[in-house]
Amino acid sequence: MSDLMREAASLDAADPLRSVRDRFVLDDAVYLDGNSLGALPAGVPGRVADVVEREWGRLRIRSWGESGWWTAPERIGDRIAPLVGAAPGQIVVGDSTSVNVFKAVVAAVRMSGGRDEVLVDGTTFPTDGYIAESAARMTGATLRAVPPSEIASAAGPRTAAALVNHVDYKTGRLNDLPSITAALHSAGALAVWDLCHSAGALPVGLDSYGVDLAVGCTYKYLNGGPGAPAYVYIRKSLQSAFDSPLPGWNGHAEPFGMRASFEAADGAVRGRVGTPDILSMLALEAALEVWDGVEIAAVRAKSLALTDFFLRCVSAFVPAGVVSSLTPFEHAERGSQVALRCADAGKVMAELIGRGVIGDFREPDVLRFGFTPLYTSFEDACTAARVLGSVLGQEGFR
Amino acid sequence: MSDLMREAASLDAADPLRSVRDRFVLDDAVYLDGNSLGALPAGVPGRVADVVEREWGRLRIRSWGESGWWTAPERIGDRIAPLVGAAPGQIVVGDSTSVNVFKAVVAAVRMSGGRDEVLVDGTTFPTDGYIAESAARMTGATLRAVPPSEIASAAGPRTAAALVNHVDYKTGRLNDLPSITAALHSAGALAVWDLCHSAGALPVGLDSYGVDLAVGCTYKYLNGGPGAPAYVYIRKSLQSAFDSPLPGWNGHAEPFGMRASFEAADGAVRGRVGTPDILSMLALEAALEVWDGVEIAAVRAKSLALTDFFLRCVSAFVPAGVVSSLTPFEHAERGSQVALRCADAGKVMAELIGRGVIGDFREPDVLRFGFTPLYTSFEDACTAARVLGSVLGQEGFR
Repeated sequence: MSDLMREAASLDAADPLRSVRDRFVLDDAVYLDGNSLGALPAGVPGRVADVVEREWGRLRIRSWGESGWWTAPERIGDRIAPLVGAAPGQIVVGDSTSVNVFKAVVAAVRMSGGRDEVLVDGTTFPTDGYIAESAARMTGATLRAVPPSEIASAAGPRTAAALVNHVDYKTGRLNDLPSITAALHSAGALAVWDLCHSAGALPVGLDSYGVDLAVGCTYKYLNGGPGAPAYVYIRKSLQSAFDSPLPGWNGHAEPFGMRASFEAADGAVRGRVGTPDILSMLALEAALEVWDGVEIAAVRAKSLALTDFFLRCVSAFVPAGVVSSLTPFEHAERGSQVALRCADAGKVMAELIGRGVIGDFREPDVLRFGFTPLYTSFEDACTAARVLGSVLGQEGFR
Repeated sequence: MSDLMREAASLDAADPLRSVRDRFVLDDAVYLDGNSLGALPAGVPGRVADVVEREWGRLRIRSWGESGWWTAPERIGDRIAPLVGAAPGQIVVGDSTSVNVFKAVVAAVRMSGGRDEVLVDGTTFPTDGYIAESAARMTGATLRAVPPSEIASAAGPRTAAALVNHVDYKTGRLNDLPSITAALHSAGALAVWDLCHSAGALPVGLDSYGVDLAVGCTYKYLNGGPGAPAYVYIRKSLQSAFDSPLPGWNGHAEPFGMRASFEAADGAVRGRVGTPDILSMLALEAALEVWDGVEIAAVRAKSLALTDFFLRCVSAFVPAGVVSSLTPFEHAERGSQVALRCADAGKVMAELIGRGVIGDFREPDVLRFGFTPLYTSFEDACTAARVLGSVLGQEGFR
């Protein structure tokens, strides 16, 4: 046991991202739920206070121009872009992930030249399926749920688009974005990716792999705060054909022209809808400053090292056969979380939380542990496994 | 001139809402743009700091339960409800006004039993028209724009619903909600009202008049902050038939059940979509505390007194014929703003703002002055008219 703790200390000492941890507000808890809500970046409270007290309180309406509120959705989109491998001008921030899924799937069907089938990742976080179903219903298309591993072969001449999760929210499995995207393109279909569980945790390569549309939230590995606005990526070459089902005035070519009919703005800006939540939006912008000087490749390297190490520690501390990993051991198939199946998982997680190890529970039997390379240490990983072993070794959990 | 200033002082001294002004952060400017962005309530900065630093920063993920984040949309909806004449359980907060217009119009068509026409207020704030057009397109209905005064007579056997503004954003005209709603019902159509420019400024009476669906923003007379989330009202008796085009997981009967198919929650909660912007949401909740002990009837009385007085002051200070009011003189037809047409209105407003009188300009020739009874004084109204008279009297504006 102490060998692993010593190893953790030496891995932390050698971690090139070690100092980034100081950019966050942390405490004695081992916080492994950044895949649900990222920790608070230290620069956010001051920035939010300034937005509230000076920009809203004193400048008031003038801040739409003078404080850059109006252009925040596209400016912050450009700040996220390098983290997901996108050139500028293709991402706008605003609305929830669900609303952006609706925009993307409807627009994809409309761009498909009459195709009438939408495929959806059958293991998806449910809201994507619900919204894709609505998008299909409202465009006259049929929705078909298939496992992500079969999407490439399921796409056919009727397939307008497929909506796929880059990383599965429950198992932490990383789906093969390059090959699924290429297969969809071979079938003449568009690839719509949900990046909620990958953006900020690993390289995405939207432009490199020719992804067509993508959506993601910003409150997980991007640490934007509770319910921080989501985003939509619209590949440059598709922007002029992007026909939004939510053509709000913020996406108009001349928003203050107060024209009777809608004319979409050029570029990704046409993905905007109504007035964005400025407080949440600018908290996100401040949160993104923690990425200064951080390479996503280094993040990925640390993420894999963390999850590898955690799995080793779990093997060491937890009696064999008590838990099993839903998360693939292959690096190429692993996101940045570890999901363990275990009896009484709800009670086990409550006990872990009581002992200062914060993960979460997903029905029916899954313990989720998220590893955010910017602030999670190897010591955290070791401690979590040690406490898990201790909890599972006690009366009532055997 | 000094007579009017003396009268302003005595009206302010007798104002029963006078002390409510102290609940806001104000300065020497005469702020008459609360119909675009309400002033900062004094309790908001402290509350937002607590949400960021303690609830997000320290409790983190636990705040979804322990800090009441999850139930905020319906809790804050119930806080808004009495201001618009609604019993509890019919309003949920979240998303932008545009997104809520989409939900409401689509749901209205779906509830209409096969009717295929949507009427829209032809003078509407443009986004309502754009979104209603999209809702019509996606439900197979036809959109027809008619002036609000003709909506009652335009509704026929094909009319599923009409989307009407309670107060016109440009002219400040108050449309007759009770009679238009009754006429729509006589024609078998649903009444969908946009309350952006009336909620918090005058009594709405949603329940009393049998309004079916309504939407509104919260950053104008409700002072919720820039881009604060909007809301949708779903009349109790229609809730079980409300079939949202945006069936996100937050509106599911069992959101953490992670079910493959969507089953709408009971009640207005089914109007929720994705994860709400918590910072903006809770800033709004804190902002609504300024309403403690305030009766909307008193707000309306002061609003009319303020706009009456402002119009008298304009007559006194501005040479005859230089401006004309687009806002009706009849109280029954007036919201809480005064819109004046004037040559070179853009330049005139810039000059007013330079002299500390903050209103706004709307194309092509409109000066808008919003009167928020909670914090606007009669002295503000008099000063604004005096400065306007002075600006319009100078070289270059005659």
